[in-house]
Amino acid sequence: MGYQEFTIEGRNAVIEAYRSGKPIDKIFILDGCQDGPIMTIKREAKKHDTLIKFVAKERLDQMSETGKHQGVIAYAAAYEYAEVEDILNAAREKGEPPFIFLLDNIEDPHNLGAIIRTANLAGAHGVIIPKNRAAGLTATVARTSAGALNYTPVAKVTNLSKTIEDLKKEGLWFVCADMDGTRMYDLDLKGAIGLVIGNEGEGVSRLVKEKCDFVASIPMKGDIDSLNASVAAGVLAYEIVRQRSM
Amino acid sequence: MGYQEFTIEGRNAVIEAYRSGKPIDKIFILDGCQDGPIMTIKREAKKHDTLIKFVAKERLDQMSETGKHQGVIAYAAAYEYAEVEDILNAAREKGEPPFIFLLDNIEDPHNLGAIIRTANLAGAHGVIIPKNRAAGLTATVARTSAGALNYTPVAKVTNLSKTIEDLKKEGLWFVCADMDGTRMYDLDLKGAIGLVIGNEGEGVSRLVKEKCDFVASIPMKGDIDSLNASVAAGVLAYEIVRQRSM
Repeated sequence: MGYQEFTIEGRNAVIEAYRSGKPIDKIFILDGCQDGPIMTIKREAKKHDTLIKFVAKERLDQMSETGKHQGVIAYAAAYEYAEVEDILNAAREKGEPPFIFLLDNIEDPHNLGAIIRTANLAGAHGVIIPKNRAAGLTATVARTSAGALNYTPVAKVTNLSKTIEDLKKEGLWFVCADMDGTRMYDLDLKGAIGLVIGNEGEGVSRLVKEKCDFVASIPMKGDIDSLNASVAAGVLAYEIVRQRSM
Repeated sequence: MGYQEFTIEGRNAVIEAYRSGKPIDKIFILDGCQDGPIMTIKREAKKHDTLIKFVAKERLDQMSETGKHQGVIAYAAAYEYAEVEDILNAAREKGEPPFIFLLDNIEDPHNLGAIIRTANLAGAHGVIIPKNRAAGLTATVARTSAGALNYTPVAKVTNLSKTIEDLKKEGLWFVCADMDGTRMYDLDLKGAIGLVIGNEGEGVSRLVKEKCDFVASIPMKGDIDSLNASVAAGVLAYEIVRQRSM
């Protein structure tokens, strides 16, 4: 497990990397280059929100490790995802009831990084994210996690509802946050628990919410709608930490 | 009180705005323009981290409200700061003991916005920030506050330690967060309280920390150093909310 950055050099290698779905954070292209493969790379870069920088040949030569960059060098992030089983094993090894974060489509990489950071410090054994739509583990996530990505296992699953069902068989209870829930202080959040954090705009999806055993609400005394997703995750996680430590 | 965006048009008006310290978020300059005043504006823009966009004359004509843009239109943020006294009055009007956030040099505007958002929802009566170094109230802060900047008063003070002393005379207790503090669950955080949040990298400064009545620690069970500043502010604020609601 762990997070690494590496470079991909050369036109076909970069196009191939995009086609296979590798997360590419940044791409350096020879300034003025306009041929077919480069145009394809630019198109893919725009589609995948990759940062493009146009640089001089000297710069590329300097950056190149192979000496065969063909006018393009990409920076990709590689993260070896954990399995859900690894997270359960981490809890077993520590002799603690499992404490897992499940992120129901967090889209902002800064929020994702901050939540992984919180999961690490709150003593959670791992984080589960869905395969589709949601933010993946990019350089921004690694940076905003402040190193937590190297310690806290992150698993990627196809179907979050299905994973919740499987984990219930392992004895976990699930709590998600929503405004119509029970005040979090009035819930019993001890024991083996999965904390479900919803999407920034839409909250927890209906299908996932239906699988949850409890719906917790954070008291809202103000004039606006909701906390930032990573702040809400922190507040809920630390209510769990408080109850576990009593 | 409130937050507004407005435009400044024309070379001298924009240069004057920079000189008087107005926070300018974004500036549109006529593409290809290279004369003296425009070079001065570009220099000021770089110095103040303003986003520069070079656009065609048609675009500027379209954006202009005065018809006299002279090749430059700036977008500035205007926020009418509150006084500390306004914050105390807000508490009095609600018949609640004052609950105030004091930010000891938060530098990232995303954190500042998220913290103002949290202050609003945790029922704090206002936020106090220092005049120097720290992030001011820009468009990014307004956006990440999710509207809270329109409700929660923010006061700017010259000397945070001095403000803490003055507020102690009003009966407030002060708590800041640091790793060497008492576990926050073991402190009595009820009553009139000021919550001091430190800088992202350096934490609470020594002079401010010395003025605090309590140092609270958030339990840290992980492998890394600290929570994101806005997450830490949320966790502490909601421990105060919990204790106040018991």
